[in-house]
Amino acid sequence: MLAPFRYEEGALLVLDQRRLPSEETWLRCGTVQEVAEAIRSMAVRGAPAIGLAAAYGLVIAARQGVAFEEAAELLLDTRPTAANLRWAIERARGVEATSEGLLELARELEREQLEADRRIAELGAERLEPEDRVLTHCNTGPLATGGYGTAVGVLRVAWEGARLKQVWVDETRPLLQGARLTAWELERAGIPYRLVTDASVGALMERGLVDRVVVGADRIAANGDVANKVGTYPIAVLAARHGVPFYVAAPVSTIDPETAAGDDIPIEERAPDEVVRVLDRAVAPEGADALNVAFDVTPAALVTAIFTEGGVLEAPYERSVAGVLERAGAR
Amino acid sequence: MLAPFRYEEGALLVLDQRRLPSEETWLRCGTVQEVAEAIRSMAVRGAPAIGLAAAYGLVIAARQGVAFEEAAELLLDTRPTAANLRWAIERARGVEATSEGLLELARELEREQLEADRRIAELGAERLEPEDRVLTHCNTGPLATGGYGTAVGVLRVAWEGARLKQVWVDETRPLLQGARLTAWELERAGIPYRLVTDASVGALMERGLVDRVVVGADRIAANGDVANKVGTYPIAVLAARHGVPFYVAAPVSTIDPETAAGDDIPIEERAPDEVVRVLDRAVAPEGADALNVAFDVTPAALVTAIFTEGGVLEAPYERSVAGVLERAGAR
Repeated sequence: MLAPFRYEEGALLVLDQRRLPSEETWLRCGTVQEVAEAIRSMAVRGAPAIGLAAAYGLVIAARQGVAFEEAAELLLDTRPTAANLRWAIERARGVEATSEGLLELARELEREQLEADRRIAELGAERLEPEDRVLTHCNTGPLATGGYGTAVGVLRVAWEGARLKQVWVDETRPLLQGARLTAWELERAGIPYRLVTDASVGALMERGLVDRVVVGADRIAANGDVANKVGTYPIAVLAARHGVPFYVAAPVSTIDPETAAGDDIPIEERAPDEVVRVLDRAVAPEGADALNVAFDVTPAALVTAIFTEGGVLEAPYERSVAGVLERAGAR
Repeated sequence: MLAPFRYEEGALLVLDQRRLPSEETWLRCGTVQEVAEAIRSMAVRGAPAIGLAAAYGLVIAARQGVAFEEAAELLLDTRPTAANLRWAIERARGVEATSEGLLELARELEREQLEADRRIAELGAERLEPEDRVLTHCNTGPLATGGYGTAVGVLRVAWEGARLKQVWVDETRPLLQGARLTAWELERAGIPYRLVTDASVGALMERGLVDRVVVGADRIAANGDVANKVGTYPIAVLAARHGVPFYVAAPVSTIDPETAAGDDIPIEERAPDEVVRVLDRAVAPEGADALNVAFDVTPAALVTAIFTEGGVLEAPYERSVAGVLERAGAR
């Protein structure tokens, strides 16, 4: 599996995920401004991965002589929804603000992410059964976490342990992370999958073709509400209607104890152009306006369980979320 | 507004909807085989429009000397879900099977469709309110009916009568009829709209941005279950959850009294290539498999009302559907 970036001699080399799978292009980010732009443009994306990219961005800022707070603000300003971005920067406040101190932290966070992903994957895979056809949304593999993957990590461990029959991958418009990235990662891992359009999830459920849903998260509120890539909430509503378990796989760093509930999560709106054009070709009339909401919120009541490295969380979420944060010694 | 086809000197000239809005290309179908292929390939699409195209296909078959039953089979074989295809052919069985007799019928069906569309639009528009932001799915305008449009017809009359604020158009993958056709028709009609991805409908509803939903139908069962373009059912489920009225606009010819319930409706599966490629560019890895289900079924319980030219149908649908068929003197 490919990593989303690597740090080399004062620069972050970012695999441009916007061009995958047709092209493997690496962007060299030698300034914190370039790292921020790679995050904003979604050359690197996925809540855990952008947290790690930001940690390396702080290293590069220190080398440039950019003040910590200025760099932090630049990085925080890129994408408002993912909790991991703020979390990584908070962690950096706890270490010496030198390039060496920050580099040590970034490497440590990367190791932690890999360990967390593995643990999430093991805990999640235990909930799957050999004949399961599992639907996932967007991309939550190594490209999205810089580790082993969250929801895709669960699928990888389940596949290795013969607890999975097939994955349903929805394409995840507008940027097609499902079709371009998840399908590609599953292909490389040899895991059987079939692609569907986002609008097909109801038809799949009606036909009884989905046994479980596993998705990632961009921010989890203290009450268990989950912000994730737009399209997640309709899947959760359909899953509840059809009695299909709906799981979320995410590291504890995705939980934001300062966000009480889903309504408090800032939801990013991106440029209309991502909707109006597909792969750089216009699909709508000249001048068409679009609303491009990047995330939606799935209420905790629709979530069967949340797989974290600190354990599997279930309702009542106020209590289980508080418990895992306490055990993690978080804030 | 553009018509989806016109009959001229023994040939059906079909506007190739797969190339809209970027190109206006007309295909000349001089044989019934070419008409069938235009329907199968979705150069012409929309349940009412393919019914009319089939009626003209029978005219062309008669001119070619192709036997009626052979032509009927060829046309019926193109797309299994739309009720209007079978309905048009049944109507043709009632007239003299000469090219003159069949041409007279085709022209009559076209007039009937336009009148039905107008009546549906008037009845439907009465249910809308001046501040309504109305979501529609796929394309149900003149291109889809050969008349005034069904759901889009409702929106047109509502707009003219100041009973509409804005339309939400979802793009309707895989073939993007919403982005390419509905947006284009609304643009030409001067009706304000915003485009969203199919996966965004949940986010819109969560934010309270949708006041009503109006969609078309490809087949309505005797119990009121509605088969329509895939993605309709998730919208209906979300609408019910958020207390948003969900309306279907369709001519009586879309009702199939011989289909007892939604489970009995044959659902077309189309080539995976429509999902794997967007506008002729691959979006998934080489060799990726996809399931391309063209329709889903919305249970009658989720439908607030069905607008037909014979009146507005409401629950209990067994009774209201039977009543409208009886009034229409249908089978």
